[in-house]
Amino acid sequence: MRGFRERSSVDEALAAALDGVGPLPAEAIPVVEAGGRVLAGAVSSRVNVPGFRRATMDGYAVLAEDTYGASPYNPIPLRVVGVSLPGAEANDTIKPGECLRIMTGAPIPDSADAVLKAEDTNGAERSIEATAAVPVGRNIGRIGEDVTVGDTILHSGRHLLPQDVGLLTAVGHTPVHVVRRPVVRIIISGDELLPPGAAPAGPSIVDSNSPMLSTLVERDGGVPQILRLPDDREAMEEALRRDGADVIITAGAASVGTEDRVPVLVAELGTLTIHGITMRPSAPTGVGTIDGVRVVILPGNPVACLAAYDFFAGPLVRSLGGRSPEWPYRTTERLLARRLVSQVGRTDYARVVITGNLVEPIAISGSSVLSSVTRASGFVVVPASSEGYAEGTPVTIHCYGEDCSR
Amino acid sequence: MRGFRERSSVDEALAAALDGVGPLPAEAIPVVEAGGRVLAGAVSSRVNVPGFRRATMDGYAVLAEDTYGASPYNPIPLRVVGVSLPGAEANDTIKPGECLRIMTGAPIPDSADAVLKAEDTNGAERSIEATAAVPVGRNIGRIGEDVTVGDTILHSGRHLLPQDVGLLTAVGHTPVHVVRRPVVRIIISGDELLPPGAAPAGPSIVDSNSPMLSTLVERDGGVPQILRLPDDREAMEEALRRDGADVIITAGAASVGTEDRVPVLVAELGTLTIHGITMRPSAPTGVGTIDGVRVVILPGNPVACLAAYDFFAGPLVRSLGGRSPEWPYRTTERLLARRLVSQVGRTDYARVVITGNLVEPIAISGSSVLSSVTRASGFVVVPASSEGYAEGTPVTIHCYGEDCSR
Repeated sequence: MRGFRERSSVDEALAAALDGVGPLPAEAIPVVEAGGRVLAGAVSSRVNVPGFRRATMDGYAVLAEDTYGASPYNPIPLRVVGVSLPGAEANDTIKPGECLRIMTGAPIPDSADAVLKAEDTNGAERSIEATAAVPVGRNIGRIGEDVTVGDTILHSGRHLLPQDVGLLTAVGHTPVHVVRRPVVRIIISGDELLPPGAAPAGPSIVDSNSPMLSTLVERDGGVPQILRLPDDREAMEEALRRDGADVIITAGAASVGTEDRVPVLVAELGTLTIHGITMRPSAPTGVGTIDGVRVVILPGNPVACLAAYDFFAGPLVRSLGGRSPEWPYRTTERLLARRLVSQVGRTDYARVVITGNLVEPIAISGSSVLSSVTRASGFVVVPASSEGYAEGTPVTIHCYGEDCSR
Repeated sequence: MRGFRERSSVDEALAAALDGVGPLPAEAIPVVEAGGRVLAGAVSSRVNVPGFRRATMDGYAVLAEDTYGASPYNPIPLRVVGVSLPGAEANDTIKPGECLRIMTGAPIPDSADAVLKAEDTNGAERSIEATAAVPVGRNIGRIGEDVTVGDTILHSGRHLLPQDVGLLTAVGHTPVHVVRRPVVRIIISGDELLPPGAAPAGPSIVDSNSPMLSTLVERDGGVPQILRLPDDREAMEEALRRDGADVIITAGAASVGTEDRVPVLVAELGTLTIHGITMRPSAPTGVGTIDGVRVVILPGNPVACLAAYDFFAGPLVRSLGGRSPEWPYRTTERLLARRLVSQVGRTDYARVVITGNLVEPIAISGSSVLSSVTRASGFVVVPASSEGYAEGTPVTIHCYGEDCSR
């Protein structure tokens, strides 16, 4: 209970968290569920898109030559010998002087070589007049114009966008092999904790870390698995050793006191690589490994827990899921409305509020003030090499919300 | 089949899509499910956080006065008369010369007025020496320091962040009243369409719009409900009139051909406010209302479908869900690597690729090229007032992916 033996830097702790970590193995899922997932390998197409010559406009499949010279002042008559609709085979053939009514997306018979759009015709059911000329190939989607057999349509590691799901569907690619989502065991311990949904009472407080961490893990593409334990060595040991987690995050009992069991247990059951870091808040953060599973020990204080998640656990969860370890936060620059004090040798996670063109550090008495991160627009990182920034210094803000301007 | 009677501008179509639209009514959900949802009303706290005086450091609850003058060269002895642990009532009292071992988060007995941190002590179980002085109140979290009863902790319309869920949980606020997620009926029609998961064959193509739209709707906080119909008037009428949707999006059969039933049906069953817009792609877009439900008619062509979703349907879905109608895309600026051609009077949705400090328009022969939106970094909007931009012009890119730098 005499402080950390030796504190590590933020960079050392992050390196320890990510050491040897890569994307999890692939799993196969139906294409309609692939949005937002990460491709485990490149996808090449087994088909052409379009797979047949098709009309890209509503109008008439024609022989281009028949329309040469046509204009509103020189309409050229054509006989309508049939219709081609989407989804039906194009069995009709046309001869000079003939045409086929055709809808966008419908197949074009081999005998036609252009589509005259509807706006460039006059006429009725059985015969029309061309009022414009079309060159060969006009308004025809060529076979393989969009995608050709063998084309790599999406690269490994792609975070699948809505249109990617569309393209995979269009080429008939299913199942899709995506990086498995990491199962993130969140272990919360403390006899003072009531489950979320309870009202705080007496000296008991409600576990606010598990719903916060669970939301963060889902944001980062992981599958949260929450275990809330009494302050009991055996329960904690079982929770740390149980199979089925790709990564373990603990919150609470993280420091150097006699009741801070987690770091001691991690060291006993596996390796405790890091314990104690030069960061405020979040000093009592640790990183270890048990049976090949990385364990990130987060402080129980909710603000410190959030900061340490973002610095160390988030990049790990995202890396396991094949995503970028980078923060998902948007950034913006503002000038400091007043001095931001830090200390050389310590990384600071300073919560700030953007007001117009300026940004203001939030004055707080303790790191435990959870409302400081709900009031904040985001945070500024003051690196260990700096003793803070003077009023008027431009700083980069990592914004909590989608809208950085507030 | 002679083109649109009169085309509307993009602004007119968006105004029609959003006309009279506001957030849906609230629903009550458990606090642990509230991440990412939108608050339907302000939340004020019914409790103080902390609800009791608590230690913010591991150490000893003391009478500050007892420590005055203490230093490593003048250690002051104190008798340890008990311990205060998190979650237990603080029933012990201390008298001058006494102290209580205390853990972070544990309640502080009324008789103590400061916490001496463990690092500032020497000593054993039953007695310690203070090696530093602490002022009154040091290392004590005051009642209501974080949140005071009656404080508005989160405002109406807040898009709930992980830490917000933590704070709501900490104050025991459950259920949470959030804006109901809009049920978005996605109607896809066409005899040529195979269901997603099928392989394209002959003149049939796979419906790639429903999985794409479904992913977009989920991104925007809606609940997709997909109906895939044959090209049949009665089926379409039933799908447009059936109860249970907060908004209807159709894709396909959107233009002015005889088989383009949707706009005609919307006009018959309700009001067709907009049909045909001055935009490329996506000209055959429409907006209407049936029985009070807004209907957005999207083109069947997947790229036009995506663009029209983003311009008109997305803002509507987000507004119904209490979110900002603004695009969720990050933006960045680059110089055009070559000329971007457009036409006065028409809004262009130009797909572009970012390469280093430049951005290049994607050369495509037809708007139907779905791979153009999977290859693109994002899009540039060329407004109707512009005939395009010269090489070297700085343009704003709306990025499809999270990482705008690629």
